[in-house]
Order: sequence, then structure tokens, then C-alpha cells
Amino acid sequence: MAQPQDRAVCERALSSRFTEVRAHTVAMVAGLTPEDCNLQAMPDTSPAKWHLAHTAWFFEAFVLEPFAVGYQPVDPRYGVLFNSYYNGIGEQFPRAQRGLLSRPALGEVQAYRDQVDVAVLELIDEVDPQAASAGAIFDRIELGLHHEAQHQELLLTDIKYNLFQNPLLPAYRSDGEGGFDPDQRAEPLPLTFIDCAGGEVCVGHDKNSDSGFCFDNERPRHKVLLQPFRMSNRLVTNAEYLAFIEQGGYRDPQYWLSDGWAEVQQQGWTQPLYWGRVDGQWLEYTLNGLQPLDPAAPVSHVSYFEAQAYAAWSGHRLPTEAEWESVAAGLPCAGNFVDSGLLHPQTAQGKGGRVLQLYGDCWEWTNSAYLPYPGYKAPTGAVGEYNGKFMSGQMVLRGGSCMSHAFHVRASYRNFFYPPDRWQCTGIRLAADL
Amino acid sequence: MAQPQDRAVCERALSSRFTEVRAHTVAMVAGLTPEDCNLQAMPDTSPAKWHLAHTAWFFEAFVLEPFAVGYQPVDPRYGVLFNSYYNGIGEQFPRAQRGLLSRPALGEVQAYRDQVDVAVLELIDEVDPQAASAGAIFDRIELGLHHEAQHQELLLTDIKYNLFQNPLLPAYRSDGEGGFDPDQRAEPLPLTFIDCAGGEVCVGHDKNSDSGFCFDNERPRHKVLLQPFRMSNRLVTNAEYLAFIEQGGYRDPQYWLSDGWAEVQQQGWTQPLYWGRVDGQWLEYTLNGLQPLDPAAPVSHVSYFEAQAYAAWSGHRLPTEAEWESVAAGLPCAGNFVDSGLLHPQTAQGKGGRVLQLYGDCWEWTNSAYLPYPGYKAPTGAVGEYNGKFMSGQMVLRGGSCMSHAFHVRASYRNFFYPPDRWQCTGIRLAADL
Amino acid sequence: MAQPQDRAVCERALSSRFTEVRAHTVAMVAGLTPEDCNLQAMPDTSPAKWHLAHTAWFFEAFVLEPFAVGYQPVDPRYGVLFNSYYNGIGEQFPRAQRGLLSRPALGEVQAYRDQVDVAVLELIDEVDPQAASAGAIFDRIELGLHHEAQHQELLLTDIKYNLFQNPLLPAYRSDGEGGFDPDQRAEPLPLTFIDCAGGEVCVGHDKNSDSGFCFDNERPRHKVLLQPFRMSNRLVTNAEYLAFIEQGGYRDPQYWLSDGWAEVQQQGWTQPLYWGRVDGQWLEYTLNGLQPLDPAAPVSHVSYFEAQAYAAWSGHRLPTEAEWESVAAGLPCAGNFVDSGLLHPQTAQGKGGRVLQLYGDCWEWTNSAYLPYPGYKAPTGAVGEYNGKFMSGQMVLRGGSCMSHAFHVRASYRNFFYPPDRWQCTGIRLAADL
Amino acid sequence: MAQPQDRAVCERALSSRFTEVRAHTVAMVAGLTPEDCNLQAMPDTSPAKWHLAHTAWFFEAFVLEPFAVGYQPVDPRYGVLFNSYYNGIGEQFPRAQRGLLSRPALGEVQAYRDQVDVAVLELIDEVDPQAASAGAIFDRIELGLHHEAQHQELLLTDIKYNLFQNPLLPAYRSDGEGGFDPDQRAEPLPLTFIDCAGGEVCVGHDKNSDSGFCFDNERPRHKVLLQPFRMSNRLVTNAEYLAFIEQGGYRDPQYWLSDGWAEVQQQGWTQPLYWGRVDGQWLEYTLNGLQPLDPAAPVSHVSYFEAQAYAAWSGHRLPTEAEWESVAAGLPCAGNFVDSGLLHPQTAQGKGGRVLQLYGDCWEWTNSAYLPYPGYKAPTGAVGEYNGKFMSGQMVLRGGSCMSHAFHVRASYRNFFYPPDRWQCTGIRLAADL
Repeated sequence: MAQPQDRAVCERALSSRFTEVRAHTVAMVAGLTPEDCNLQAMPDTSPAKWHLAHTAWFFEAFVLEPFAVGYQPVDPRYGVLFNSYYNGIGEQFPRAQRGLLSRPALGEVQAYRDQVDVAVLELIDEVDPQAASAGAIFDRIELGLHHEAQHQELLLTDIKYNLFQNPLLPAYRSDGEGGFDPDQRAEPLPLTFIDCAGGEVCVGHDKNSDSGFCFDNERPRHKVLLQPFRMSNRLVTNAEYLAFIEQGGYRDPQYWLSDGWAEVQQQGWTQPLYWGRVDGQWLEYTLNGLQPLDPAAPVSHVSYFEAQAYAAWSGHRLPTEAEWESVAAGLPCAGNFVDSGLLHPQTAQGKGGRVLQLYGDCWEWTNSAYLPYPGYKAPTGAVGEYNGKFMSGQMVLRGGSCMSHAFHVRASYRNFFYPPDRWQCTGIRLAADL
Repeated sequence: MAQPQDRAVCERALSSRFTEVRAHTVAMVAGLTPEDCNLQAMPDTSPAKWHLAHTAWFFEAFVLEPFAVGYQPVDPRYGVLFNSYYNGIGEQFPRAQRGLLSRPALGEVQAYRDQVDVAVLELIDEVDPQAASAGAIFDRIELGLHHEAQHQELLLTDIKYNLFQNPLLPAYRSDGEGGFDPDQRAEPLPLTFIDCAGGEVCVGHDKNSDSGFCFDNERPRHKVLLQPFRMSNRLVTNAEYLAFIEQGGYRDPQYWLSDGWAEVQQQGWTQPLYWGRVDGQWLEYTLNGLQPLDPAAPVSHVSYFEAQAYAAWSGHRLPTEAEWESVAAGLPCAGNFVDSGLLHPQTAQGKGGRVLQLYGDCWEWTNSAYLPYPGYKAPTGAVGEYNGKFMSGQMVLRGGSCMSHAFHVRASYRNFFYPPDRWQCTGIRLAADL
Repeated sequence: MAQPQDRAVCERALSSRFTEVRAHTVAMVAGLTPEDCNLQAMPDTSPAKWHLAHTAWFFEAFVLEPFAVGYQPVDPRYGVLFNSYYNGIGEQFPRAQRGLLSRPALGEVQAYRDQVDVAVLELIDEVDPQAASAGAIFDRIELGLHHEAQHQELLLTDIKYNLFQNPLLPAYRSDGEGGFDPDQRAEPLPLTFIDCAGGEVCVGHDKNSDSGFCFDNERPRHKVLLQPFRMSNRLVTNAEYLAFIEQGGYRDPQYWLSDGWAEVQQQGWTQPLYWGRVDGQWLEYTLNGLQPLDPAAPVSHVSYFEAQAYAAWSGHRLPTEAEWESVAAGLPCAGNFVDSGLLHPQTAQGKGGRVLQLYGDCWEWTNSAYLPYPGYKAPTGAVGEYNGKFMSGQMVLRGGSCMSHAFHVRASYRNFFYPPDRWQCTGIRLAADL
Repeated sequence: MAQPQDRAVCERALSSRFTEVRAHTVAMVAGLTPEDCNLQAMPDTSPAKWHLAHTAWFFEAFVLEPFAVGYQPVDPRYGVLFNSYYNGIGEQFPRAQRGLLSRPALGEVQAYRDQVDVAVLELIDEVDPQAASAGAIFDRIELGLHHEAQHQELLLTDIKYNLFQNPLLPAYRSDGEGGFDPDQRAEPLPLTFIDCAGGEVCVGHDKNSDSGFCFDNERPRHKVLLQPFRMSNRLVTNAEYLAFIEQGGYRDPQYWLSDGWAEVQQQGWTQPLYWGRVDGQWLEYTLNGLQPLDPAAPVSHVSYFEAQAYAAWSGHRLPTEAEWESVAAGLPCAGNFVDSGLLHPQTAQGKGGRVLQLYGDCWEWTNSAYLPYPGYKAPTGAVGEYNGKFMSGQMVLRGGSCMSHAFHVRASYRNFFYPPDRWQCTGIRLAADL
């Protein structure tokens, strides 16, 4: 928690960051139609409009209602419509039906956001930085910004999935936009493995070396014992994954976990989510529309089951989250994040003998279940439902993707999804025992 | 089929009717947002935008492509997206996913309609009324207009259902619109029964007495033998249906067909689709939004199972379609159709001793399964899929509703839905043996 | 209702018939193991043991409890376990879970039957044939025997289906048993059509010409008007049906009703239920085990959807139930019933120019929905649930099959199943308009 | 792997143990009817007969076919029917339909077992203990015995579940059998917590201190770092769990993981699997039939979700598997196993200040996901499918239960089930941070 003397500076900085982050969310839907913003193709993917509204509601419910004296919600019914899963706050509109909310219309949701923004900025302005409560308020707003960053990423992954259902394969943005140039294709570095000593390492958020913010699930920082291991220098490429497909990877149960093989059979999986083949040519659906598959780029939108099967087929395994963090902790948190504007994983570039692409490009499936760290305590109150209650059945992913904000990612960040999930920008990092 | 000498007149009349019917469809969505027009809350309810596009495609596929020399479809991909169920024409986009088609956007669909309209009007203009093919072309356009009328009704019933899923209960149109005035409430006529002699009667489309058009399923006209019966003078009212509810109708299996009782249990039915109770007051969701339930108005949006159970509880039965038609055939086809602008069933008014409300207000469930008439032949080609292939599992409804066009309804018209369907404007006419 | 003077004779006859019918049910499971008797492969097929118990319970609930003074049920819990669907009597154990009732064991169920048999025979013995209630008691026992005959047929169709799920394909009885000789194969008569005049005909149970008993749904006898029609002289053969398959019948939607085509797609139907192909040879699973398909025998175990599609493909249609009955009424009720012991439909034999195989061999799908006859009234009380509450969604079948008892079938008998059902011994009779 | 010089002794011992273990399986079904042995109430519970057959097949497929020269399978079709999940061996009959295999009958399966037993005993007899292959053969037979022990436990948990579906609530054995005496009820020790230092501990199978056999998933032995923690001295009792229920535990989402709360809602859970309440009295279904709930006995048949929610409600957490093993490793593997014949968890007895009931009574849910140990390698070939392919989505349980064999359990044993599973004899051990 920040100290009072820093808070006046914080306050100005916070207002400015708040404005910037909130404006960015709105900017993300600029190229979409109102119908696009209302799409929900499966329960997991929320409409873009719902993300816009929910992130406003989050500030209402967790910042304005507790801290802004006399604040009246813009519309009390929004508390049901746009509450995601906070039982501590109240009832929720069923998740799977969010796409049925044609009202409030997109314009009304934007007006809702504006009203909330004004109230939050007023609150920041009115808070006496020396007051006892200032820290709690600023921390909660900070949480809201990181929450918004998460939903910005979901907005992108969700709209990609939702638009993909349409046989017209509409693009999120036009072909040339964002500097994504399918013709500028590089050769990837050869795949090599870097030896890592393991031993006793510290994992979890480090207040001293890391930037201030972290989620509750990154704490407490603690020691773990690692065996010596090796980690691949880059992500698995499309070309490498194609070899797995062509050599029958999706037809041979020996590489798959039992639950993974069941999923392959039931879903009829034969390739990553966004791949297709037309007249013998492999194509990939991207936020810039359908593109020829780039063999050198990292494979993306694979499930944990596919990542694990690929690793088994290639004679390796996935890293654990502690292994991953022990390597990442020493490296600057830089890479192909959403800030680059590319919105697609890029071919690994750089010197050999190093572990590259740890940050950005693709979230990396680890072989660690999402479980509490030793000594973990969820915060009290409804905000405590943020992370802790999801600690079953999911696997940890690390490092952020080309759809994550740089400011939102760090070495200790623990993302989590279910083993069959494929609509996030997820890729494969290999590891092996030494 | 119309005779050549009438066709020049027909041609002018047809252009004008075509323009009018097509414009009406567009007018129906004037008060809706693009998001509203994309809603699909269950597989049976298509988005309003899809209705707009499908009815354009119907003219492309069944009029322009076969008859307009050199016609090129506006977008060949629309042939998949907007084909409802014509296997004879080709593949269809899955019905349950129509709500995922954010593109083409509403504006593009309207442009599509405009292009089709221009082409059809040109075709009408160019046809030589004396030419051998003129009859076939005009008949097909006539079919397209009746098809469009059906979709206009579906557009209303679908949007009502789709908007109803939203806890905000948005209205299709504002409170005062359409002359629907919840305060102007009348007393209904007392329920009485009119004796009908039965005997040998003719049913099916009568070319001589009826207007020219009919669907294939109304033919051939044929004789049936009826026992003497009685028919109620008006539809069952909300107040009467409420007595059924209050006396435990939804909790007692003895009134229900076995499949109906299973539906009650599985769906948790306790009342008609659009009824609700708030603070002890019964309310009904209408196209003008939520309204106090009018006890005198006909009960609507009940399934066949509910209609049958109500009839059994009240000691009556539902009429057969032949009974219904034998009574309706002698009466003018007039009533509370969509042309009245009310969009809600109205309290029965008029003299006693007559069968009222046969036309308009609510489609009336009959106790007849939707099956072919003796000697029925479906037309050849894809257009033959229009009616014939649905002849299993559905029950016949008669008389049109407050959401049907007057020009589209006639004594011999056979509508059909599955026994559990409730989203159409369906009501209850009672009958009994004499 | 029988007259008092006949009742003393009736009484003796009834005791003897009761004993015979009840013994026959037990004899049917003689070759089965206790595990066989407990199988339930789908909700529609009950375990053989359950049929044994339910038919005992029926006499308890509908004969002994109302009429045998002081009768105490063998085990009051059986009233829940073995009540099929009589809500008027009480709660029912869920149908889909009957196969989970390992207890009471087969021996206990047989003891239950014995106790009920003793009590019913005592009751028959004690009834004073002159007493006012005698008629009601005898009629109810008669109903129980016909009920038992229905369950005898279901026992056979259910055990056939249940054993068929096992890859070992166990036979219900050994190869030579029952006189079923796959090598004795005859040529069928050529398929011809017999002209029928139609006109005003009477259908429904005729007290004068028919034997005494009928179900409520066969009444009242009434007149219907038929157009002239033609009816095929025999059932469709396996060879004829094979041509439909080989010419792509299961791959072409044009022959199918819309709901039928959906079923073909979802279930992956490519042939009748019990057909298989091994090394290019067609085989058929029978109660005598797997046998080479006999091309001359009637096709059996097809759904209404398949019967209708075959009829459409061959340029014909299915008969209505009134057409069927008008032809059958004039013919003796004789054919290949269960009494022949063959348990499989046989090749049509006999003279040309006649309608053959109307009785026995296969139930014949009609194109009539199962609905009440004009003036139909279900009996009061729980016994009224027997037939009336199933009058929705099902199609009528006529004529009995090789698994029906001769005494149980008559011209007016209305059997009914859902359009996709295939596990009954159902076949195809063709008709056409004249 | 055992050394050659020990093998002659081993051989005699192995024959005798083989005979004993195999006979025990058969003895377990002595009180069951053939119908009981065929029950399968859900896909997870196999019929007892299937367990009998599968464990015979295991010896055929993994011992006789690879090692007994010239061995011919008893029936080659059994290789499909009784293969559980070994894709490396071939196709499998669908798991969910095992209850449909009325054939081979129970007697035939017992004959199958006898033939396999003779062949295995012959093989043991014929093996030259000095031969190079002797170790592999003896190890594989040892694996088969441990495999059989697992299925003996499943046979009990499955038959308990399967019989429980019957409203008659039949008992697996009669009331007095097995020494289970509901009237002999003790007071449990007070619940206390024992401090554990944590630090660097070794987990995984220890060749030196443990008995010879372990599964692949218990290896390699490796070091982990533990924080100091506390562990409860005994399992949670029924009385303690009842307090959770009575204070609304099943109605308050705050104690539950998100997936757990979804399960509570969907399944309608309000109590452990085998609890019921009649006339205000709590009862528990046991293998000795329905019994009054013993407040002092450990709560059993709870899911991971319930264990976790109870722990959260009581202010504790579940132990990790490493914490559990670090405590158990120092204690003798003794407790209420199946060998006691009680088949039900017993009230904790003994001195305070110690961790009791670690072995036997109930499997203890840990808060560890079932994942590979560092350096884990599955064996090659089909036998490698035994454990490794299930390493996703399941949680580890430790310590065995009153249905496990003493010889089969050890400190390093890792059992695993899905978080919602309740049909195993699972209980709750509490832990907390120090």
C-alpha cells in the first residue's frame, strides 16, 4: 500500500492512467457495429458491450458505492445485469444469456461508462491524500484498472471467437491495420534448449523488485525446490505443430491425457482453433481476417490438452509455473504485447542461447494446476471472490500474450483456464528434465 | 392460375402490392436497434434481420434466379446464410446460430432488399402478360408475398419472445403506440355454445368462393363427415384461464396429455408464457411492454398442451380443423388482424348467439394433427418443401391472429406448430359433442 | 358387458384363460438368465422382470384392491416400483431406471405373481355371477388379460432390443427353436395393388361382428368418408427396401419428412434397426440370433419416418387407419401371430388379387395420427389413463405382428408409437390414390 | 526388482498370494444375486461382474499373452468387452454400457476366472526363477494383484452406489454381518491440531523403508519444501459436519469454490451422498443397509468440493499431499482397512496429541492436483496407460479407507478422483498454516 506522502503525485498519475485505460476500452470497439458488440457465441465469450458495461459496474460496485459518499447507481438494475460472479454482491443475470441483452443499447452503455468515469475522477479529486482511507481507495481503483485490462484482453479474444462463427469471416479490423503484414515473414531461430540449474528458488510477487500491483493469488512469495531442467529458447512454431498434425498427432491416443483424448473425440478436433485448409493451403483466422498460415510464427489458440500432447509427441514436457517464473524473474517484462498493435504472435527474433518470447506473443500453458500458494488468504468481502474461488480444475498460464497490456503482466502473474479452453491466445513452451 | 387477359391489370396491381408488402416488413423494424434485430433467444425464433434477409433471398431463389434472365445474386454466400430449410437449393447455415450473424449488418441487409426489390419490379415490368410463362412468374411472386406475410408475423412473435428474455423488459413500441389502451377495458360476452349440425361438409380451398391464392396444403378440397357438435361463441378469456390456474390446473396430471404433463414438469410451467405476478397483481408482457393483465381479453401464448388441459378441465374439448372450417366458411374473414395496429388480442364484442373471434385475435389450436389431405401432392422442385415436409408431429391452428395480415388469412388456411410451442399468439376455442 | 346368464360359463372360461395367459408370460422368460431379465438399454424398453411384476401389480391395483374385500397388497412398496404411469394411483419409480431394480429378484417376482394369481382365481371363484358387480369384475379381469398380452409383446420387443446391445449378440432362443428355419425361403408374391372404392365406411369397434373386448380408444364406432384408393397386396420386402438403401434413400432429404431427416442425421441411420453388413453380406438380428437377411421376408423394425420415406421414394404413400380398417374389416383375423411360434415376419404366401398379411407379421404404420375418435370419452378413474392420455405426437399402427397374440388383435385395434420408434416389429404397407 | 536368489521363495509366496487375492474377489460377491452383479447406475460404477471379468482379462492381457508361450485367450471377444481403457491393446466396449452385458453370465465369468487362474499358476510354476525374464513376469503378476486390490475396493464402492438407487435400499450384507454394530458407539476424541515443522522433506516411494511394490506415479522420490503447518488429530465427524449443514453450509456460496457451488446448484446437494432424514432422524445408508447416523464416526462419501467448503467454513484448509505424506511417513500403515471386515469408518480412538486415522477409515482429500512428480516417466507399452494418462483434472487422496486392503496402501500411495466424486469412501482431514 502506497504511503501518504506519495499520494498527491499518485492521485494525479491515477487520474491520468484511469482516463487512459478507460478510453482504451472504448477505442477497442470503434470498428465494430452494434450487432458485433452484442455477439456471444458460447457461454465463455461475453459480448463486447457487456465487457464495456461490466467494467463500469466494477467501479460502481467496488469503488463508488463503498467510497463515494451519497453515490447513487446509474441504474440499479445494472447491478444484476452486469455483475459477473460476485455472490457477495447479489444475484447475477445468467452468463450464457448475455448475448440476449440488446438493451441497454451500445450508446446507453457508453453513457453509463461516462457517468461512472466522471464520478470516479471526482472521487480521486476529492480524496484527501493524507486521509486514512486514501490508500484503500487508490488501491481499489488500481485493482479496477487491472480488472479492466483483463477485460480488454477478453474483449479481443471473445470478439475473435464470436466473429469467427460467421461464414463470412469478418475481420475485427481491416487488412493493413495495426502493422500486421502477412508478407513480412521471417525465419525463426532454431529450437534449442537452455539448461537451468533449479534448486531452491523464490516464487510469487516480490514487493522489492516488481512494480507495486499484484493480485492476491501471486502471494505469499515463497521458496520452492526445483530439479535441474531445460527450457526451450522460443515458442513452438506453426510449422513444428503442423508436423505433429501430419504425423497423425490428432489420431493417436498415446500422446494424449485421457480427458484430452475424450475431448478430441467429442469435439472432432483435428487442428488448432483458428486453422483451416482450403485447396491444400493452410489458413489462419486472425483479428485482421483470414490469412495464409505463417509457418514461422508461434502456434496459438491451442488447449492445454493439445500443448501437452504436442510436448509428449516431441519427447518433452510443459514447464511448471515455478520453473517458468524462475527463468522469467531475471528478464525484463518486454515483448509483443497489445501495445505493439499487432494483435498476433510474431516469429521469435533475437540471439540464440537465451530464453525468448517469455513475455507477450502467447500465454504459455504450464503443467501446474491453479491452486493456492502456501499461506494464501483471499481478501475479505465480495472482492475476495476475484481469484480464490476459481482454484479448482484449471491450469496456470504465464507471460501474457499479444492481446495483453504490458502494464498488466509481470513475472509472478498467474493466469488460469480450463484444460480444453482454446479461445485465448495460448501457445506452447517446451521443457525437459536435465 | 390467372388467365392472360387479366394479367396486365394483375401486373400493375402486383407491382403495387409487392412494393407495399415489402415496405411493410421494413417498417416493422423501424423502432428497433440493430442489436434488437440480431437477437435469437431460442432456435425457433429468428432475428428480425434474418427475416428481412431471408424474405429477400426467397425472391432471389424462387423468382429471380429461375425467371430473370441473366440475374446475378447480390452475394452468392447469402444463398447459404439465408436459406431456411430448402435442401433442394443447397446447404443452410445452422438455424440455431442465426443470432451469431452480426454481418451483414442491418444496413447491408436493407441494401440487399432494395436490390432485390428493383430486380423483381423490373421483372414484373418486363414480363409480357400474354407470354406462356407469365402465369408461373406472377404466381411465384404471389407466393413470395404470402411467404413474406408469414415472416412478418414471425418477426413480431420472435421479437416479442427475444425482448422478453431481458430483465429490463423492453417494449417493441412505446406505451401509447398502436392504439392499444390498457385502460379501455370492456366486459366480454358471456360464454355460450352454438349448436352445429355437422354432417357431410366440404373443406379445403374453394376456388370459387375464396380469393385466388392458397397454399398446397389446403388442397384438394374434399368432403368429410362430421358428427353434430357445439362450438363456443368466443375465445377463452384471461379470467377464465386464471380460474384454471387458481384451481390447481398446472398441478394436477388428470387434465393433461402424458406428453403435456412431462412438459409442465420439465419446463416448470405454471402460467401462460407472458404472464407474471408482482406483488399479487397479474401482469402480461405485450409488444407495448408490461401491462396489467386484462381479465376480459382472450388468453394468448398458450401451448396446445395447455389449451387441451384447459378444455378438459372445463369439461369440453378442442374443435377439429374440419369443425372449425365448417363454421368459419360461412363467415366473412374479418377481425382483429395486424392491420388494426393493436398487436394484441381484444375482448370479444358483438351479439350473442354467434360464433365470434374466429378470425384474428389468436390462432386457435385444433385437435387435428397436421397431415396431408386425401389426394394431396406437394409441388415438384424445392418449392415443394414449403409445406409438405412438415406433416408430422404438429397440430393445426386456424383463423389467424392479431399479428397476421388480413390478406393472408382465409377459412381454409392451415397453420401448424408443435404441441409445446407457445411463442405464437395462440388461444383457446372450446367445442363439445352434441 | 356380458349378461348375467352367461356369467357362470364365463367364470369357468375366465379362470382357465387367466391361468393360461399368466402362465404364458412366465414361460416367455424360461430361456433367459436373471441378468437378461433385468436389462434396460433405453427408457422405452423395460426389463423382462419388470414386465412380469407390473402385470401382477396391474391385477392388484385394478382388480384385487377395488374388488377383493380385505385384500392386502403383497408388498406396499411394489405399488411405487411397478406402477407404470397411473398418476391417479400414485407416485411411480422413474421409468428410465427400471433396469436398476436388481431387487426384488426374479424369484421374488415370480412368487409375487403366484400370490396375485391365487387371489385373482379366488376372487373369480367367489364372485356370484348374478351379483350386480360381477360384470365389472369380469370386465376388469378381461382388461387385465389384454393388458398382459400387450406386455407379452413388449417383453419380446424389449428383450430383443436389450440383448442386441451386447456385441456377443446373444439369441433369445436357440437357433432351431420355434420352427424358424432360415434355409426354408420362399419367393414372395409380386407386388400388386388392389383397388378399393372408399366412400362412406364405418370404423371403430363393432359390437355385433367383433369379439366382445375392445379398448376405449376403438370407440365410438362412426362413419368416415374415404376417397377411392389402392392398397398393396402385401408388405414391402427386405429386397425392395434394400433397393431404397442402395439407391441412396438414406442420403437424400427429398424423400423424408423434415423431422425424419433430422432423425436420420442425428442418429446416423443407414438401415433398419437390426440390419448389419459383414463382409458384404447383409445380416439381420432376430430372436433366434444373427441370420442372413431373407430378401423375400417383410422388412421390419423400421420407424414411421423410414416407412414414409420408402413410400415416397417408391411413388406411393402409407394408408390411413380408416382405409386400412375398411379393408381389414371384411377379412378373418388370421396370420403369423405369436401363436405360430415363429417370432419373425414371414414371406407373403397366397393368391394374387387379394390384400394379404394385414394381420400378423408386422404392425403397419398408417399415416394417421393417434387422436380420439369423434365422441370418444376416456373411462373415469385411474384406468382412464390407459389410452387417452397418449393422444398426442404418436402415429397409429394396425394389424398386429408376429409377436402379438391372435386373441388380442382385431380389425379395429389401434396401436400407437412415436414416429422415430423402431424397436417394435413394424413394417410397411403401401397405398396410393386412385 | 527382486533378485534371482529370492525368487524361488517369491514364487511359492506369489502362488499363494495370487490364489488368496483372487479368491477374495469371488468371495466378495457371494451374497449378491446375478442381477445385483450386473447393475451399473452411472458410467463411473461398473457392475460387480464386470470387475470380476476385467481383473481376469488384466492377467490375460498383461501376463499370459506376453509371457505364457502359446497361450490362447479364453474368448477373444472378451478382449473388447473387458478392456477398461487400454488404447494400446485395442478397442473397448463403451464404459457407460457395461451394465447391458447380461452375457457372459455370472457363472461364465467365474469359469473364465478359473481358466485364467490355472494358467497363471502354471506360468508361475514353470518360470525358472533364475531366468532373465523371471523378474519381469513376477513384477507383472504383482502389478496384477495390486490392480485386483483396486478393483476389489471399486467393487464395494460401486455395489454400494448401485444398490442405493433402489427404493428398497437392499443391503450388501445382512445387518449383523461383519461385526458392524450400530449400537456400540463411542465418543470421539476432541478435535485438536498437531504442529508440524515442515521444511525440506522427501516424498514419493522409498525403496529402503517401504515394502517393495509401488505404482509409477509414486516415483521418483524427491524433496519438497514445506512451510510449518498444523494437522488435525482425526477425521471430521458426522456431528461436526452436521453443524455445517445446519448452519446453512450448503446454501451459502462464500464457502465454496466456484465449480463446487455450480455442482451444489445443479445436483441439488444438501448433504453427503448416503445421508437421509426420516421423521427428523438422520440416517445413513451403509453396506449393512440403512442405519441411524453415528455422530461420532467420520463423515464419509463427501466430494472434494464439500471437503473444501467444510474446511473453509471451519476456518481451516485441506492438507497438501506432501504435508500429509510427511506426517504419515513416520507412522505404521495400520488402521481400519477392509481386512477388519467392518466396511464402514469407525470413531477415532486413541491417545491425544497424535495424528490418528491417517490410514484406513476414509480416503482423505488433499488440496493437491494429481500431476506428475518431477522426473516422472510412464512405463512404455500399454501398461504405461495405467496411471499417467489420468494426470489432469483430478485431486489426490491419501491413506486408504475401510474398503481398501492393508497390503495395498502405503505412505506414498496416490489415489485420485475428480472434485465432484462422492461414491468412494472419502472423508475430511483438516490442516492450517502455522
